[in-house]
Amino acid sequence: MTSHLPAAPAIARRDIETAAARILPHIRRTPILDLPAASLGASCAVALKLEQMQVSGSFKARGAFNALLQSGAREVIAASGGNHGAAVAHAAGALGLRAEIYVPAIAAASKVARIREAGATVVQGGATYAEAFAASEARRAETGAASVHAYDQPEVLAGQGTVAREFEADSPGLTHVLVAVGGGGLIGGMAAWFAGGPVRLVAVEPEGCPTFHEARRAGAPVDAPVGGLAADSLGARRVGGLMFGLAREAVEASVLVTDDAIREAQRRLWSAARVVAEPGGATALAALLSGAWTPPPGARVGVLVCGGNCDPGSVAG
Amino acid sequence: MTSHLPAAPAIARRDIETAAARILPHIRRTPILDLPAASLGASCAVALKLEQMQVSGSFKARGAFNALLQSGAREVIAASGGNHGAAVAHAAGALGLRAEIYVPAIAAASKVARIREAGATVVQGGATYAEAFAASEARRAETGAASVHAYDQPEVLAGQGTVAREFEADSPGLTHVLVAVGGGGLIGGMAAWFAGGPVRLVAVEPEGCPTFHEARRAGAPVDAPVGGLAADSLGARRVGGLMFGLAREAVEASVLVTDDAIREAQRRLWSAARVVAEPGGATALAALLSGAWTPPPGARVGVLVCGGNCDPGSVAG
Repeated sequence: MTSHLPAAPAIARRDIETAAARILPHIRRTPILDLPAASLGASCAVALKLEQMQVSGSFKARGAFNALLQSGAREVIAASGGNHGAAVAHAAGALGLRAEIYVPAIAAASKVARIREAGATVVQGGATYAEAFAASEARRAETGAASVHAYDQPEVLAGQGTVAREFEADSPGLTHVLVAVGGGGLIGGMAAWFAGGPVRLVAVEPEGCPTFHEARRAGAPVDAPVGGLAADSLGARRVGGLMFGLAREAVEASVLVTDDAIREAQRRLWSAARVVAEPGGATALAALLSGAWTPPPGARVGVLVCGGNCDPGSVAG
Repeated sequence: MTSHLPAAPAIARRDIETAAARILPHIRRTPILDLPAASLGASCAVALKLEQMQVSGSFKARGAFNALLQSGAREVIAASGGNHGAAVAHAAGALGLRAEIYVPAIAAASKVARIREAGATVVQGGATYAEAFAASEARRAETGAASVHAYDQPEVLAGQGTVAREFEADSPGLTHVLVAVGGGGLIGGMAAWFAGGPVRLVAVEPEGCPTFHEARRAGAPVDAPVGGLAADSLGARRVGGLMFGLAREAVEASVLVTDDAIREAQRRLWSAARVVAEPGGATALAALLSGAWTPPPGARVGVLVCGGNCDPGSVAG
């Protein structure tokens, strides 16, 4: 299967400006917490963008609102490892739409509960995100409902890119931003914002789900394993074609971290700053704390804490 | 016993400015999270100051650093329901001082563990804060160590007041700020900052430890019961004399909340914003969510989330 690589970037900065204005009434401008190196035991100071405090508990609400506000539909069907489903369910509820969310079996129980609480119908089944997605597309073909893809759709990428716009405005002078990658909608949108600018992105993935790392090696999106601690939020089978084209603009490095490094990052976020991050939400920081990525001299480093949809008791252990 | 009520305010705005400059290298400027009314199910929008993200997990680090940086001592002895002890232990460690912390039996295990982790010697015993304080003073008379009072000491009040200075600067236009009260060092320092200005303070206490409420009724600090869910952080036996003089300047109301209202505020902070607050840290918000305090028309309301030193799993239940 050949991936689709558009000749021109699929998303421009102006698309992200438009998205930011569109979703403004519905999302939060999440705060920044500046921490000196010693606080987290890191090799440099860090600006944490606390996106786990976003509505629905992750950045996914940005893309979901941006897509649904343009769809014109009364009903939406989506497939999701959990956070995207919670975000679509939340956005649909806020906008008065019916939502049906297809969830793979590996989804965390707390995420499935959140989707139900937001008023959506949950259809759980299939071992992976890809299987849940296939089931959702089959259902959509029957019903004519709108679709919101978890990562490979221009409206979704533009919505996720708004987090980069806020980070740049609220934490000026950053040279590097570390971001976790699953299907790549987040880092793709952020790359569209930072393209041609001074901020470089570092893509961080668990060893168990190295979709972007494998795509970089292959020169195109390819299937990769799905497993490990953060699979419920970062476990896409391959990165999207749209993100892969955008990533060339601003992603400087791709690094992998172990599940132990992710757990340790969760523990330190709690212990040092009372931040609860799910495994996927602590993955970017894990690259810095474990030394999987080393900041160059003079770097000013930002880290996106992208989600907090876990049992809060799981972060202290 | 007659309380000490100074004729002139014990703390002025300039003392708080000086304290802010003194402690700047050691504390965090904690972020603000703005939430619309619907997010928390409140009757108005709320600006949350996330002081549970402060070093040592509560605002107490501000007063501890301000006192220790002026003491000149090599050793410090303090008594604490937990958060003050953690703060003194943290500050002593950061400044290279020896610390011995007297902790009452009701202190949460997680707080005692934090005091030890910061390198302090813990002496646990006595049913209440007052008994632990008496033991610490006896020991201090033997050793000549410096003392840092948990709330009734000018340097401590001036340090705690720095949180009001930040809140005013980072969330302009507030008309009311809700603050939890135990011994009153926090609201006393904040009252010193807001004295004569447009921001009015609302003192919130659990029904189980109504020290300030009883003092207002009596016209002077008096002994009050110590009990309930938040006793480990708000369970002083009476408010300090210094705070009582300052409170007349800026505290508009004193309200009580139930333990159920506190638990519900903890749950909503987690559910809506992934904020983990200990019972004392959620007490101020509980007044708004339960209707114990009703904002007047046009009010712009700030709430201080003052501590997060609890088992994180305890907030979701």
